[in-house]
Amino acid sequence: MTDHKDLATRFEAVRTYSEKLCKPLEIEDYTPQSAVFASPPKWHLAHTTWFYEEFILKPHCPDYKLFDDQFSFLFNSYYNAIGDRISRQSRGLLSRPSVEKVYEYRQYVTDKVLESPQLFEDPDKASLIELGINHEEQHQELLITDLKYTLSKNPLYPVYKDNFSLVEQPETADGWLTMQEGLYKIGFEKPGFCYDNELDRHQVYLQDYLISKKLVTVREYLEFMEDGGYSRFDLWLDEGWAWVQQNNVNAPLYWYRKGENWLNYTLSGLVPVVESAPMAHVNFYEASAYATWAGKRLPTEFEWEAAAGKLQWGTRWEWTNSAYLPYPGFQQADGAIGEYNGKFMINQMVLRGASLATSEGHSRVSYRNFFQPEHRWQLTGIRLAQ
Amino acid sequence: MTDHKDLATRFEAVRTYSEKLCKPLEIEDYTPQSAVFASPPKWHLAHTTWFYEEFILKPHCPDYKLFDDQFSFLFNSYYNAIGDRISRQSRGLLSRPSVEKVYEYRQYVTDKVLESPQLFEDPDKASLIELGINHEEQHQELLITDLKYTLSKNPLYPVYKDNFSLVEQPETADGWLTMQEGLYKIGFEKPGFCYDNELDRHQVYLQDYLISKKLVTVREYLEFMEDGGYSRFDLWLDEGWAWVQQNNVNAPLYWYRKGENWLNYTLSGLVPVVESAPMAHVNFYEASAYATWAGKRLPTEFEWEAAAGKLQWGTRWEWTNSAYLPYPGFQQADGAIGEYNGKFMINQMVLRGASLATSEGHSRVSYRNFFQPEHRWQLTGIRLAQ
Amino acid sequence: MTDHKDLATRFEAVRTYSEKLCKPLEIEDYTPQSAVFASPPKWHLAHTTWFYEEFILKPHCPDYKLFDDQFSFLFNSYYNAIGDRISRQSRGLLSRPSVEKVYEYRQYVTDKVLESPQLFEDPDKASLIELGINHEEQHQELLITDLKYTLSKNPLYPVYKDNFSLVEQPETADGWLTMQEGLYKIGFEKPGFCYDNELDRHQVYLQDYLISKKLVTVREYLEFMEDGGYSRFDLWLDEGWAWVQQNNVNAPLYWYRKGENWLNYTLSGLVPVVESAPMAHVNFYEASAYATWAGKRLPTEFEWEAAAGKLQWGTRWEWTNSAYLPYPGFQQADGAIGEYNGKFMINQMVLRGASLATSEGHSRVSYRNFFQPEHRWQLTGIRLAQ
Amino acid sequence: MTDHKDLATRFEAVRTYSEKLCKPLEIEDYTPQSAVFASPPKWHLAHTTWFYEEFILKPHCPDYKLFDDQFSFLFNSYYNAIGDRISRQSRGLLSRPSVEKVYEYRQYVTDKVLESPQLFEDPDKASLIELGINHEEQHQELLITDLKYTLSKNPLYPVYKDNFSLVEQPETADGWLTMQEGLYKIGFEKPGFCYDNELDRHQVYLQDYLISKKLVTVREYLEFMEDGGYSRFDLWLDEGWAWVQQNNVNAPLYWYRKGENWLNYTLSGLVPVVESAPMAHVNFYEASAYATWAGKRLPTEFEWEAAAGKLQWGTRWEWTNSAYLPYPGFQQADGAIGEYNGKFMINQMVLRGASLATSEGHSRVSYRNFFQPEHRWQLTGIRLAQ
Repeated sequence: MTDHKDLATRFEAVRTYSEKLCKPLEIEDYTPQSAVFASPPKWHLAHTTWFYEEFILKPHCPDYKLFDDQFSFLFNSYYNAIGDRISRQSRGLLSRPSVEKVYEYRQYVTDKVLESPQLFEDPDKASLIELGINHEEQHQELLITDLKYTLSKNPLYPVYKDNFSLVEQPETADGWLTMQEGLYKIGFEKPGFCYDNELDRHQVYLQDYLISKKLVTVREYLEFMEDGGYSRFDLWLDEGWAWVQQNNVNAPLYWYRKGENWLNYTLSGLVPVVESAPMAHVNFYEASAYATWAGKRLPTEFEWEAAAGKLQWGTRWEWTNSAYLPYPGFQQADGAIGEYNGKFMINQMVLRGASLATSEGHSRVSYRNFFQPEHRWQLTGIRLAQ
Repeated sequence: MTDHKDLATRFEAVRTYSEKLCKPLEIEDYTPQSAVFASPPKWHLAHTTWFYEEFILKPHCPDYKLFDDQFSFLFNSYYNAIGDRISRQSRGLLSRPSVEKVYEYRQYVTDKVLESPQLFEDPDKASLIELGINHEEQHQELLITDLKYTLSKNPLYPVYKDNFSLVEQPETADGWLTMQEGLYKIGFEKPGFCYDNELDRHQVYLQDYLISKKLVTVREYLEFMEDGGYSRFDLWLDEGWAWVQQNNVNAPLYWYRKGENWLNYTLSGLVPVVESAPMAHVNFYEASAYATWAGKRLPTEFEWEAAAGKLQWGTRWEWTNSAYLPYPGFQQADGAIGEYNGKFMINQMVLRGASLATSEGHSRVSYRNFFQPEHRWQLTGIRLAQ
Repeated sequence: MTDHKDLATRFEAVRTYSEKLCKPLEIEDYTPQSAVFASPPKWHLAHTTWFYEEFILKPHCPDYKLFDDQFSFLFNSYYNAIGDRISRQSRGLLSRPSVEKVYEYRQYVTDKVLESPQLFEDPDKASLIELGINHEEQHQELLITDLKYTLSKNPLYPVYKDNFSLVEQPETADGWLTMQEGLYKIGFEKPGFCYDNELDRHQVYLQDYLISKKLVTVREYLEFMEDGGYSRFDLWLDEGWAWVQQNNVNAPLYWYRKGENWLNYTLSGLVPVVESAPMAHVNFYEASAYATWAGKRLPTEFEWEAAAGKLQWGTRWEWTNSAYLPYPGFQQADGAIGEYNGKFMINQMVLRGASLATSEGHSRVSYRNFFQPEHRWQLTGIRLAQ
Repeated sequence: MTDHKDLATRFEAVRTYSEKLCKPLEIEDYTPQSAVFASPPKWHLAHTTWFYEEFILKPHCPDYKLFDDQFSFLFNSYYNAIGDRISRQSRGLLSRPSVEKVYEYRQYVTDKVLESPQLFEDPDKASLIELGINHEEQHQELLITDLKYTLSKNPLYPVYKDNFSLVEQPETADGWLTMQEGLYKIGFEKPGFCYDNELDRHQVYLQDYLISKKLVTVREYLEFMEDGGYSRFDLWLDEGWAWVQQNNVNAPLYWYRKGENWLNYTLSGLVPVVESAPMAHVNFYEASAYATWAGKRLPTEFEWEAAAGKLQWGTRWEWTNSAYLPYPGFQQADGAIGEYNGKFMINQMVLRGASLATSEGHSRVSYRNFFQPEHRWQLTGIRLAQ
């Protein structure tokens, strides 16, 4: 699927990049876990390493010696087929192995992979490395968003890095794109790497629709808030309204009121909200309520994909009004690798696009991201359709 | 939409039928509530009555005098636009008003409606009566399934009625129906009554598929169980497996092990399971795990509807692998009436067909029933596709 | 211990009185349960009957035929030694057996006991009947207080009985009683019936103290409230303050604000609070906070008992600052009867006195009532010491 | 109360000792929190420092400059009078301030205190320093027991220190001590430092009793277990039995079954249980159940104190059957300092003695330790009485 020298280069690059992301951290920042869904940096660093060890080195390098027997138990995420796992909410308790040890583990596995040219030459093994690279890229985004969530719980509002690139840039697009009724091809077009959930490529019939060229901005969202958006039940899905009330929600995640103004916790600290930037950190309930208030709706994932070639995208993951379900002809791999996507196809909504935290080259028009509708710790935004 | 004399006759019939369903009950059976989702018979009788009072008599009959001021608070179900409601899990505490009073309330409202011919003649008002009739028919099914759930909690396994018609009848269909790739029309075809969620009628493109002519039987489901169905994580959606483990589930709802045999709690008491009958009382997780075990899948709601004309259906609500989402062009009514369907379009799966508990004439090929995937107190079964 | 004719007369009287308490009820009132701790009237009527059947008729009347095999499971309360029990919070689901059936059960057991003269003549058996009578008297008080709690959850504020005797009467005592340092005898002085927790009678050394002759009145408690009693953490025990905050408590149980005034739900309906009456329905946390606010403290149970002969008491159960723990020499009976008191001797506080809902002749100066500190659905009040 | 040079020496010693306890830790060990009740080492180090800053330097050294404004919010434990606090279960999220910063904070505060001779000379201020020292000593024990709890959650079973002194030593005492009925003096006998809860010294009348000279050993406790101790409801308090069932408890804390043997997690790693050692890590429910099984009972705190002079004690905190309640004449200080003890006097049981983790010189015969009955992460053991 890709030249094997290239693949080794990309493998090295992705390994290096994960560590680069952690450069600004104190040792103390590597361990805490602030929610079931937000894993510690140390865990991400180790788990992405474990993936290569478990699925590539162990089965395909007969002489491979495990770095540490117990790491399989500690750093397995959700693969039931591999055996017992440490409970997901307990990752923040693992003060040991030390950060230093985890870096040794990374180096050891990286070296072993690079020292085995056959892994890059054999197409089946190369495709596992490709999967490992994509897996690690996914965790790079989570590492950053999880870290942000954890640091935000600290009343000191710690700075990860000054002028960090996720800081808001203005939305520049505008207007509506008109799309015609008809049959559209949806799903990944080979060749190249994609996840199983992007297949089969198949036809979908769409009605006429308009899709916004721009994402909803902070300024627009503030209008919704000022118009009582968080206190008008008629704008919300029933579950969304229950979520608002049970959690006394009156603003997006990371927003703090200070007098007349709203401040926003970012990885560069607490800063005023940027009105021209696209909204981020809203969940599906909020996206849906905003769309209802605006007299519009969210696009389906098919409407999004059909139009994507003519849209600017990539600063926010965009909520669609499609549930995460299998495409016709969906097949999952046998064994633990098959646990990657299919078993999550219930009660999650699809997001399309990519965010500023997405690793370069990791997304594409057929890429299907997915989260439960209540989550908002990702860089999630809103595009309207009608 | 329908002749107004007919409408009055149907109105009277549906009012009478709700009460006929309650004939076998003791006074004590009218009040208890066994789960948030399972309302008491008294509440169903009163709430269906309140619906006509609130949406028809109050706004459209200027001289109408409320039966009791407080009933609006007591018997509103989920319409936020109407005002505060008694919390849903507290319905079982309402020993007052007495059962006798609730029957008086029913009679009073029924009489007032029938005494106002204009309600049947004016098309807008007639369509509200039509909605009220359909609403009451929905609650008739819930009355029976909720009652079953509540009685099942009693170690005496009370009998509602001997030889009650829900007792299992054998599945007689067999084989697979072949469907061709192409465009199909989906959604309600006018004229006639339908819910807002069945519109707009629109085209959907389907790939070639096979759909089973028969529902999965008890005998087949027993094979799944004997093959370790409830203990093999690889057959389950991730959420489904969590549900199995947290609740120690090892059988469908209402099944009790007695020595070598399985007994089934029915409204006619505890009886042996009937192996030739279609399965009932499985939730979406179970339906999905069964399909995976069988090497098949559940149909989408579109596949179901496209094939429905050539299938036997009507003994079980059939889980589909479609999430409950709006059709293109979906519009909800203004005000409280609009709270009927749209606000539930998240985290629910669509069921198609009808069950033995569904009131006669209440279903149709475009009818979309929906429940959260964990629920199994309805008469829900499994049809396979591939 | 008592003349056997007398005992039979008292047995009949207590059986009749339980039923008299239920005269004002509708059939619908017998079944609902509004909290784990508040059992339905039907359950109280049946459980008190089951006690005689289980502990007296079954073991001591060889020819006795059980009224119904399943009642032992349904109406056992907490005696682990008897076998499995229906879970305590599910009592409200038992629509069957019907109220009529429960009254038949009562009559059947009452008759069988009365037809067995040996039960009254043999001292061991007579003492079990004595225990059964006392047990039923305890449940008579719970029947009334549980019923009040359940009816209070109904927005209709149902009336149990007009001018019901629990309606408030003014507190007439006043001033402080001075007690001298020294040794006092504490515990039940034989002969006569007492519970095991009142023994052994033993000596306790007390320091000088003053104990109030009067109970804290509604008027006094209103001063505490107006002085910010429910919002000043420094007045509360740590657990008490957590209870206030988690439950947003700002008034005693059954109090509802209406404009400038406080209304009180009573078994005669919603009425204005009576300022001259002794406070009721406060829990230990509230009693403790009030005492701290008043610059006083609650008496210990020993201080109470030593002074009781010189105090008016009997309108309210009075919280003491003593934990419910065994007296020196405490012995519990073997088997299920021994599960009566001892196993609850942890995390409960002792109340002394009696309330207007206590059955006549049921209390005495050595009587030890006990509840967890958060409960306030009993007629519980406050007496101060210093 | 004590010579001021001595006090400064003791102050320095206690400051040094806290840090010595942390010597074996990795940086990563300082932050995690494994339960609401088990605070991280970093927090203990900072909180004990904050205490001197808040209660001594701030009010009594006019020129004192706070080390960091936000530390008051971060490291206040439960003193409501000081203002808002970070929620107790979120201490493990505080990756910042760094460990290094916390050590700087310690040094800064220690220096400032030592540089202010007047704090040691003035009796009122000296008594606050004395309180600060005792407070820090209490936290030294918690630091160790909390750390053990957190490390025990790590499947690697980390070693804090080899041959750590808490490792079990055999119980050598034996037999029963006979105590005579009569009046005994209870409470702290001045002069010297004590907590407010040890006062007033007062007389208590005790009946004849025997108290065991030895603590219950592991071997004896194993007999209880082998005799079905954890599955016989009749041995347990009602709440204790609920605790056993809800948590599926079948062994003391930190015990792990391996084949035929029991292993024990200690701060020196996983080791076989030492049968001759006194039991540790049992809660009040377990202590009570053991005593019932043995046909004995737990002593009251008064029985313990009256006999303490003739007993060996100091390896385990010993559960008594006394609730934690005020002594006659108990007074708590005004303001935040008064929040030390009195507000916890509900639903806790008293422990007497001291453990191997107790800082030297910190306990005495009148010392009253207290915990809720379900806790067992302290070094808690069992002494019997009869």
